[in-house]
Amino acid sequence: MEKLKIAIVGYGNIGRFTLEAVEAASDMECVGVVRRSGSAEGIPELAPYKVVSDIAGLGKVDVAILSVPSRSVEENSLKYLSQGISTVDSFDIHGDICALRAKLGPVAAAHGAVSVISAGWDPGSDSIVRALMQGLAPKGISYTNFGPGRSMGHSVAAKAVPGVRDALSVTIPVGTGLHRRMVYVELEDGASEAAVREAILADPYFCHDETHVIPVESIDALNDMGHGVNLVRKGVSGATHNQLLEFNMKINNPALTGQVLVMAARAAARQKPGCYTMIEIPVIDMLEGDREQLIKTLV
Amino acid sequence: MEKLKIAIVGYGNIGRFTLEAVEAASDMECVGVVRRSGSAEGIPELAPYKVVSDIAGLGKVDVAILSVPSRSVEENSLKYLSQGISTVDSFDIHGDICALRAKLGPVAAAHGAVSVISAGWDPGSDSIVRALMQGLAPKGISYTNFGPGRSMGHSVAAKAVPGVRDALSVTIPVGTGLHRRMVYVELEDGASEAAVREAILADPYFCHDETHVIPVESIDALNDMGHGVNLVRKGVSGATHNQLLEFNMKINNPALTGQVLVMAARAAARQKPGCYTMIEIPVIDMLEGDREQLIKTLV
Repeated sequence: MEKLKIAIVGYGNIGRFTLEAVEAASDMECVGVVRRSGSAEGIPELAPYKVVSDIAGLGKVDVAILSVPSRSVEENSLKYLSQGISTVDSFDIHGDICALRAKLGPVAAAHGAVSVISAGWDPGSDSIVRALMQGLAPKGISYTNFGPGRSMGHSVAAKAVPGVRDALSVTIPVGTGLHRRMVYVELEDGASEAAVREAILADPYFCHDETHVIPVESIDALNDMGHGVNLVRKGVSGATHNQLLEFNMKINNPALTGQVLVMAARAAARQKPGCYTMIEIPVIDMLEGDREQLIKTLV
Repeated sequence: MEKLKIAIVGYGNIGRFTLEAVEAASDMECVGVVRRSGSAEGIPELAPYKVVSDIAGLGKVDVAILSVPSRSVEENSLKYLSQGISTVDSFDIHGDICALRAKLGPVAAAHGAVSVISAGWDPGSDSIVRALMQGLAPKGISYTNFGPGRSMGHSVAAKAVPGVRDALSVTIPVGTGLHRRMVYVELEDGASEAAVREAILADPYFCHDETHVIPVESIDALNDMGHGVNLVRKGVSGATHNQLLEFNMKINNPALTGQVLVMAARAAARQKPGCYTMIEIPVIDMLEGDREQLIKTLV
């Protein structure tokens, strides 16, 4: 069987882990990496790969895995879809997912390509579990509790505060979908700890949550890519109350995102042209291996 | 929008809870129940429904939910599929699922019908989670730990032992997919407790597991339909080890089975003709409600 030809677009944290997940999959191969610089300089693990600034330099590509910031997903996806190249991304701005789907869908369909959007772990694999739980207990309440782990958005917001050299905001689950923010800050020389704390507590990213600001010598010394989720639903199946459902993960965050992108890329090659979220795709289409054998071992 | 017309075939424990789940769904209606007797005598909650011995008496039926023993699924499903009526079942003999799928698929396809098989909670919704976990960490080990809860098969085996009037075998998870069997027995007058214990411990159902036989006055006094599962996987995403995934449920067993059958019936109406296991169907197809709205709230 011919291997799925994968291009990785963007090579930050997620791109690196995506490459590892592609390398670990026996049914796909990385045909190259697209970077603005077109260069692999200083990145030893890219030595065996073509690195280009334009995907045309990679020859035939089945799926482009977009490991780019969410804000760049639409532009990139439209570019590749209109060349008939399928795309997958981990677009994570929850409120804009339907709009992105509506925009990419017709372009994908018109060019015989598939786009799988929001294919990270949340949104992404968690979405599948949330949807399943909703089906198992149609009446009830679900809570998604994140952490402990770094929140990228909150860390960036804290770092933007004057007087802060570097910052790390750790999300701590306190249950029922609420979170505590532990904000570690490396202060600039002469910065006022009180002023920094006041500015962070007033920031829209933090002002609605319990937030603690803690000065530290080095943010780098705290760096850990672990994250987690606790997804719970208590609800009603038919007329029977108190059905208790729970999903937990303790994971390396970019490694799991890269793995989900690979699952989505595999699934993209098996869907009809159009744009899909993860809950619109059969899980079996995301898995490597013989279909009959998967049913035998997993069902 | 027209409601999906559901017939319930068989009206034991699962049938009762399936009816409740159909009644709770606003996008479907129960058009009647098929029972060998063709009678609702002694079952007050069936008073509002047509009860027939032949499904032809119910007029148009979109999906027949088979709440019959696993061993009767194939015969029933073939009968209805060949009339162009879609079927769903909770066939739970893990080793025979692929064979059933191969048998029902061509018949369903030939008559423009859909069959969704093994749509309980295990096999069924657990299968979706197992498949998803396999995708998230392709290398690693999964364990499905059942209980605490009654095992029907083990209870029947214990009850078949001479000297046993009634029996209840409770499955206790001891981790790594192993289980302890707590076998409660109501002895017949004059029966030897020692002989009953020896026979149960030697039975193929019990001889491989840690088994405790406990005489009680009344099995009925222990009756509880609660059950549970703890599904765990520790594995590798890409090249990153120690990814920890877990799914837990504490549920009323027949109520959840009935709810999954309803999810499968809804999905059946949305698939192309053929036979499917749950992992071959997009989760969104199992849910009630507007597709766009589901994506907005669940993804």
